[in-house]
Amino acid sequence: MTNRFPLPPGAAIGMIGGGQLGRMMASAAARLGYRMVVLDPDAGCPAAQLASETITAAYDDREALARLAGRVSVVTYEFENVPVEPVRALSRIIPVFPPPEALEVAQDRVVEKAFLNGIGIRTAPWRAVDDPQELDHAFLDLGGDCILKTRRLGYDGKGQAVLRENASHGEAFDGLGGVPAILEKKIPFEREISVIAARGQDGSFAAFDPAENVHGLGILKSSTIPAAVSPEQRQAACDIAQSILDKLTYVGVIGVEFFVGKDGALLVNEIAPRVHNSGHWTEAACTISQFEQHIRAVAGLPLGNPARHSDAVMENLIGSEVDRASSLLGEAGVMLTLYGKSEARPGRKMGHFTRVSPRSEA
Amino acid sequence: MTNRFPLPPGAAIGMIGGGQLGRMMASAAARLGYRMVVLDPDAGCPAAQLASETITAAYDDREALARLAGRVSVVTYEFENVPVEPVRALSRIIPVFPPPEALEVAQDRVVEKAFLNGIGIRTAPWRAVDDPQELDHAFLDLGGDCILKTRRLGYDGKGQAVLRENASHGEAFDGLGGVPAILEKKIPFEREISVIAARGQDGSFAAFDPAENVHGLGILKSSTIPAAVSPEQRQAACDIAQSILDKLTYVGVIGVEFFVGKDGALLVNEIAPRVHNSGHWTEAACTISQFEQHIRAVAGLPLGNPARHSDAVMENLIGSEVDRASSLLGEAGVMLTLYGKSEARPGRKMGHFTRVSPRSEA
Repeated sequence: MTNRFPLPPGAAIGMIGGGQLGRMMASAAARLGYRMVVLDPDAGCPAAQLASETITAAYDDREALARLAGRVSVVTYEFENVPVEPVRALSRIIPVFPPPEALEVAQDRVVEKAFLNGIGIRTAPWRAVDDPQELDHAFLDLGGDCILKTRRLGYDGKGQAVLRENASHGEAFDGLGGVPAILEKKIPFEREISVIAARGQDGSFAAFDPAENVHGLGILKSSTIPAAVSPEQRQAACDIAQSILDKLTYVGVIGVEFFVGKDGALLVNEIAPRVHNSGHWTEAACTISQFEQHIRAVAGLPLGNPARHSDAVMENLIGSEVDRASSLLGEAGVMLTLYGKSEARPGRKMGHFTRVSPRSEA
Repeated sequence: MTNRFPLPPGAAIGMIGGGQLGRMMASAAARLGYRMVVLDPDAGCPAAQLASETITAAYDDREALARLAGRVSVVTYEFENVPVEPVRALSRIIPVFPPPEALEVAQDRVVEKAFLNGIGIRTAPWRAVDDPQELDHAFLDLGGDCILKTRRLGYDGKGQAVLRENASHGEAFDGLGGVPAILEKKIPFEREISVIAARGQDGSFAAFDPAENVHGLGILKSSTIPAAVSPEQRQAACDIAQSILDKLTYVGVIGVEFFVGKDGALLVNEIAPRVHNSGHWTEAACTISQFEQHIRAVAGLPLGNPARHSDAVMENLIGSEVDRASSLLGEAGVMLTLYGKSEARPGRKMGHFTRVSPRSEA
C-alpha cells in the first residue's frame, strides 16, 4: 500500500452506499479527475447515474466488497450503518477511510457517548437501557423529560420516543422493538449547531463554519450559516471536532452535532462519520464543498480551505416538498439540488436548496 | 412533442460529444435530477464516466443518433463541429437545442461573419478566399496585417496563419490545405472579452458578466472577471449577444467573443453555440454555472440568475501544465477541475482552475 497516495488523476475511489451523498461525492470526485465505483443493493440508486461503475450487492457481501477492492485504490462510505465487520475485513486488503473504528463508535449510541465522555467531551446525561426495569431506574436516575433511543440503526428521528417526566412510559421500551437502547436526558437547549470538519491523511484539520440547524420530526429542515454563536463558542465547537478526529485517527469529513445549552455550554448530540446533510450549503457558499473535502482527504490530497464566500440558508425538500422545485428554480441566488429519486415518499429526502447572500462578518 | 417541457426530474438529456464540456454538463444535469446519455466515438471520453449511458458511435452515425433519440427527451451538443445534416435530421424526430441553424452559422467563418454583419453586428473586415488568386486580391483589398483561416473546422488556433503586410504569403493558402478560407484583417485591439449568454425556450435572456480573455498560440490561457470595460461596453456586449440569440431563435448557452478596439468599439470575433471555455469561472463565482444554465435552457426550465458572488480569474491547464495541479490544491480560494484525460499531450486541455476573490463593484 505504499506510495498509493496521493491518488493520481484517473484513479478510482470505491463508495459503499449509493444515496444522494454518494451521488454528490461522485460529482466532486470527477472534478478532481477521479472515477467512482459504487456498491449498493439498488442498481437504480442515486449515485449509480454518476458512477463510472456500479456493483449491485448487499453492503455486507464480502465477495462483492472484495470485487470492489480489486477495482479501486481506496474505499470510503456514505452512511454510518454499513456493517463494521465486513468493512474491517476490507481494510486489511485496501485502505478504508474513515477508519472502521469511526463506524463502530457512531453505530452505537452507548459506545458513542462513552467514547465522547471518555475524551472529556460533554453530552446530555445518559444511561444504557437493556430492559424495561433498567428503563425505570434510568428514568428516575436522570430525572425530568428524557428521550429513549435504540442504540443502533436510528436516523432521521426513527427509533426514538420522548418520555415526559410525569407520564407513563411502560410501553416505551417494547415500543422501540425491545432492542438495546439508551435513555438520554432532554436538554433545554437554545439552539442546535453542527460542525462539518475534516482530517487529512497528514493529520491536518479543517472545519467549515458551524451551521445552525432546525429539525422537524427528527429530520433536518434547515441549516443557517453563520450560526448565532459567539466566536468563542465557534472555536470551542471546532476544537471538540478536532479532538474527536484526532482520537479516531480519522481521515475524511465528519459531521458533529451539538446542543447549545441556555448557559452557552456545548454538548455533543451525535457524530456522523461521513459528509453530512447540514454541510450541503458548502457547495453553494464555499469554493471547496464538503464533498470535495472528503474526496481530498480519502485521496491523500491536501485539505481545501473551508472559508465561506457567502452566507447561506439550506433547506431540505422532504417528500412532496420537492414540488417547490419549480418555483425555487425561478429565484435568484438559489442553488437547487435534486437527488434523482423517482418516488417522493413521505419523509424521504428528495433534494435541497441553498439560498446564498453576501457574506456577513460573523 | 407537446408538453414535453419542462423536463420532469429523472428525464434523460442526450449529449452529442463527450469531452470536458459534456462532462461538466453531466454534473450540472445531475444536480437538477436529470440523467445524461452521451454519444461519442471514444468509449473512454471524459463525459462517459458521469453519463448514465454512453453510445459509442461517430457523430454522423444516423442509426446511433436515432438510438440516442429513443433514449432521451431532448438532445444537445457540446461542440460546434458536429455535422449539421445528421443533427438537422435528428431535430425532425426530437427537440434539438441549440437549433441546427446555430451550428450551421458557427461552423463556417464566412457564413458566420455574413450572418453577423447582416444583423448589423460589426466584425473585423474580411473576404472569402477560395484560391491563391483570391487571397492576393483580398490581401490588397483589406490592407495591413491579416489572418488567413480555414472556413471550417478551426479551433484553438488550428487552421490559421498570420500574413504580415510586407511579407510573402505565396504558400499560405496551400499551407492550410488548399481549402476554402477567409481572410480577416488583423485588428489592433486593446483587449479580448467574451460574453456567455443564454436564451430560454420562452425567449428569456441572461448573460454572465463579460470575461477578459488572454490567448496564447490561439488557445485560451486565462479569463478575468470583471473585464476592464466600461458599463456601457458591458451593456453593448450583452445587447449584441442577445440580438444574435434572438435572431437564431436560440435555446441554450452561447459564447460570443469580442475584440475591444483601441477606439472602444466592439467587434465580434466568433460565436460558439455551446458552453464556452471562457465561462468555466461561473462554476466557482456564480450560484448558477454556465453548465447548469445550458441544462436549464434545453430542459425548458427558467434561466438562472447569472449574478456573480465573487471576482474570478480562470486559467487553463494545457498539456504538462496539469502538473501544477498538486500545488494548486494547496492554495486557498482556488477551485481546481481536472477532465479525467489520461494523456497530457501538448496543446491538450487537461483541466482548469479558478481563483476567486471578494466581489468588486464593477
